[in-house]
Amino acid sequence: MAQRELTPFPELIRKKRDGEQLSVLEIRDFVQGVKYKTIQEGQIGAMLMAIWQKGMLAEETLALTKEMMMSGEVMSWPSQWKGLVVDKHSTGGVGDKVSLVLAPALAACGCKVPMISGRGLAHTGGTLDKLESIPGLNVCQPGEQLQRILQEVGCCIVGQTENLVPADKVMYALRDATSTVDSLPLITGSIMSKKGAESLSALVLDVKFGKAALYQDLSSAKKLAQSLVSVGNSLGIHTGAVLSRMNCPIGRCVGNSLEVIESLECLKGRGPDDILELVTLLGGVLLLMTGCAASLEDGKKVIAGTLRNGKALEKFRNMMIGQGVAVQAAASLCSDNADYYSVLRRALHQTDLETECPGTVLDIDGVVIAKVLQRLGAGRSKVGQTINHSVGAELLVFLGQQVEKGQPWLRVHYETPALSAEQRVSLQRALTLGSADQLHTPPLVAEVIIP
Amino acid sequence: MAQRELTPFPELIRKKRDGEQLSVLEIRDFVQGVKYKTIQEGQIGAMLMAIWQKGMLAEETLALTKEMMMSGEVMSWPSQWKGLVVDKHSTGGVGDKVSLVLAPALAACGCKVPMISGRGLAHTGGTLDKLESIPGLNVCQPGEQLQRILQEVGCCIVGQTENLVPADKVMYALRDATSTVDSLPLITGSIMSKKGAESLSALVLDVKFGKAALYQDLSSAKKLAQSLVSVGNSLGIHTGAVLSRMNCPIGRCVGNSLEVIESLECLKGRGPDDILELVTLLGGVLLLMTGCAASLEDGKKVIAGTLRNGKALEKFRNMMIGQGVAVQAAASLCSDNADYYSVLRRALHQTDLETECPGTVLDIDGVVIAKVLQRLGAGRSKVGQTINHSVGAELLVFLGQQVEKGQPWLRVHYETPALSAEQRVSLQRALTLGSADQLHTPPLVAEVIIP
Repeated sequence: MAQRELTPFPELIRKKRDGEQLSVLEIRDFVQGVKYKTIQEGQIGAMLMAIWQKGMLAEETLALTKEMMMSGEVMSWPSQWKGLVVDKHSTGGVGDKVSLVLAPALAACGCKVPMISGRGLAHTGGTLDKLESIPGLNVCQPGEQLQRILQEVGCCIVGQTENLVPADKVMYALRDATSTVDSLPLITGSIMSKKGAESLSALVLDVKFGKAALYQDLSSAKKLAQSLVSVGNSLGIHTGAVLSRMNCPIGRCVGNSLEVIESLECLKGRGPDDILELVTLLGGVLLLMTGCAASLEDGKKVIAGTLRNGKALEKFRNMMIGQGVAVQAAASLCSDNADYYSVLRRALHQTDLETECPGTVLDIDGVVIAKVLQRLGAGRSKVGQTINHSVGAELLVFLGQQVEKGQPWLRVHYETPALSAEQRVSLQRALTLGSADQLHTPPLVAEVIIP
Repeated sequence: MAQRELTPFPELIRKKRDGEQLSVLEIRDFVQGVKYKTIQEGQIGAMLMAIWQKGMLAEETLALTKEMMMSGEVMSWPSQWKGLVVDKHSTGGVGDKVSLVLAPALAACGCKVPMISGRGLAHTGGTLDKLESIPGLNVCQPGEQLQRILQEVGCCIVGQTENLVPADKVMYALRDATSTVDSLPLITGSIMSKKGAESLSALVLDVKFGKAALYQDLSSAKKLAQSLVSVGNSLGIHTGAVLSRMNCPIGRCVGNSLEVIESLECLKGRGPDDILELVTLLGGVLLLMTGCAASLEDGKKVIAGTLRNGKALEKFRNMMIGQGVAVQAAASLCSDNADYYSVLRRALHQTDLETECPGTVLDIDGVVIAKVLQRLGAGRSKVGQTINHSVGAELLVFLGQQVEKGQPWLRVHYETPALSAEQRVSLQRALTLGSADQLHTPPLVAEVIIP
C-alpha cells in the first residue's frame, strides 16, 4: 500500500492560523504527532493558540475528539452490560461532591458506573482527592480489577490510567501553560475523548456557570454543553447535560474529608437540598436516557429512593471495600450514627468565623473560600503536590438566613499553615449580608438538555 | 533591593492572546525566559502565534527588539569610526548578490561595514553560502579579527556569532516550525535586534515585494519597511529603506559560484543594470544618511564611481584575503580577464534549455527557477544541510527580448542529482513569452524611505 503523504506540521498550523478547516486526516496527523512526539512542543503550543483564536467547526471538533480517543486504549465491557454503562462528568466547582453520591445511587439502580475522575487543581476540588481521605481507598485499579468491582458492586471511581487518551495528557498540561484552557473545541476534545474511551452507553454532563465556574455566563456554558452533547451523541453515547449555577459552594462542606462526611450524610438520606437536587436530576437524566426510567420525573424518584432506602449507601460501602478500605472502617462510616472521625482524619484546629453585622445572607462566594483553603493545604497550585485531606470549611449558615451580629457562620478546619489574619479578612469578604428584600436566589439548575 | 515579582508566563500569553498591550517589563520577562529556557518551548510557540494573531503596538515592537538585542553581546567600535559604521539588510530574494558588491563599494567610500549575513533556506539564497564558494574564505571571524579586517580593509562579511542575540536563535527556528514567520513585530524584532547589536551608525533595508518575496504586495512590504525604519531610528541608527520588486531573478545568475562571478563582474564595472541600480541606490542612501554625500544623487554617483575605478574591487580582494583566501586566488578572481573556474568549482554538467516558441520575454519566474536549483543541491530545505556551490543557472535572455523558437534561454549548471525531465518541464514554465504589446516592466524600485 502506498504511504500517504503527511501534510508538514507548519502547514497544518498555518491552515488553522488562517481559520481554515482541517481535514480528518490532518487532525489525525496532528494527534498522532502529539502522541508519538514527532511534533515539537513549540508547534503544539502554536496549534493550541491557533485553535483558541480561530475555533473549530463541529466536524473538526468531532474528528479531534475521535482521534484523541483512539490515541490510546478504548475500554470494552461484557455484552450483558450493553445499554447500562453510564457516567457523569462535571466541569468543576466548589464543594461538588455529587459524584460520590450519584455513582452508588446509579449502581443501586442496576447501572454500571466506571467513573474515571480527576484530581483538584487551583480552587477546584477533585473527586479522587476526596475519596483518598478515606484510609486504604485506592483509586488506581487495573482494568480487570475495575471490571470485577463493576461486576460485583456496580460502581467504581478511579483515576485515568496511563493508556487512556495519551494525547490528552500532553495537550491538557500544555493548555494550562499556554492559556488555551477555555477553548470550546479543546475542552470538548479533552472531556469527550476520555468519555469515549470509557465506551459508555450514556453520559450526563453537569456544565457549571457562574463566578466559581470556567464560564461566568449561562450562554457560554450553554455553547460548551451543546458542543459536548453533540460530540457525545455522534460518538454513539446517549449524552445529556444540565446547566447548573456555581457561585456558592454546593452543600455545606468544602474540603476533602468534610465532603466525604457530607456525601455519607446524603447517602443516609440526610443531605442538603442542593446536593439532592443535583444528584436526582443528573441521575434521572441518565436513567431516562438508558431507558431504565420512563420519564425524567420517574428517574429522579428512583434515584431519590436509593438514598432513602439505604441501597445507595450499601453500594458505596461495597465500593469502598472493593477499592481497598477495611471492612470495619467502611462499616463504621456507613453506620447510622457514625463517628466519622474514628476513621477519617480530623484537622487539629477548628476556628469559627463570626458575622460582623446582622442581616440576611445574600451571597457566599465559593471561590474566595476555596482559594483560602487551597493555601491552607486543601488543594494544589501545581500538579503532583500533596494535600492535607483534613483541611476544609463548614458553612454554618445558608442563603436567605437571618443572622445576628457575632453569629458563627463558617467553621474553618486547619493544621499547618495556620489560618492567618489576612486569610480571615479574605474569608469575611466571602459573606455578603444585606436586607431581606435584596435577596435573589435564582434556581440552581438553569436548563436541562436531553437530545 | 526587593525582587520584582514576575508575571507568570501563562498570564503573559493570555494578555497577548486577548490583544492586550504587554509592558516593557513583561516583554523583558518573556525574552529572558526564552534566553534562559525558563519558559517552555510550548509556551514560546503559543506566544508567537498570539503575536502573529494580535500583532503588537509600535512601542511593544520596539521593546521586543531592544530586549532581544540586549539578550546577548552588543558590539562596540573604535570612537574614530563614529558615524561611519554602516550595513545593508535585504529581506531576501532570488539572485540577490547586492551585498557582495555593496560592502566593498561602501568600504571604498571610507565606511566601516561589519556585515552580518545569513545562509540560504528554501528558495532564498544566503550571502554566506555565496562567499563560501570561494575556496578558503572563512565567514566565522572572532571579534578581534573582524575589527582588524574592518580597520585594514573596511568591510567584512561574516555569520552571526553564538553570543549575538541568542533569544533570536530560539525564536527564529520556532517561527519557521510554527508558521509565524510573516508577523510584522516578529520580523522587525528579529532583523533589528541583530542590527542593533552591531552598533551601527546607519542602516539601509532592501525590503522586497512580489512573487519571490515574503510579501507579495507593495502595501504589506511598505508596512514592514515602516516598522523596521521606525524601530531602527528609535534605536539611534539612521535607518532608511528601499522597496524593490522581486519577481525575476536579480541579475543573470542564480546559484552560489555563479553569483560570485556575477558580483566580480559588477565590481569590474560590467554588471547588469538591475544590480547596478540596487547597489548605487542602497549605497547612496547610506552615504546620504551618514553625511558622506550631500544628496542621494551624489551618493549614487560616488558608489558607481568605486565600481568603475576599481576601488571597490580592490576592497573585495583585500576582504577575501583578510577572510582567509590565498593571495594568488584572490588576485586571479580580480584580474581583468579572470578565468574564474581556475579558482571556483565549475559544475560537471551544463544544459541549455531552449524556448518552445518565438515571442517577447514577458516574465521569468525566479521562484520556479530557485526551487528547482534548490532540489539540485544549490539550496537547503533544512538548516545545516550541505549544499553544492557549483549548482546554478544563467539567464541567457532578458525581459522584453525578442526570441526565436529553439533559442537557448537558460543554462543550468548541475552535478548529482541530474536535471530530471520533470524539472525541465518546471523550468520551461518559468519563462513566459508573448507579444511585445503585452510587455509590462514596472520600475525595479517602487519607493525609497529616508527619514
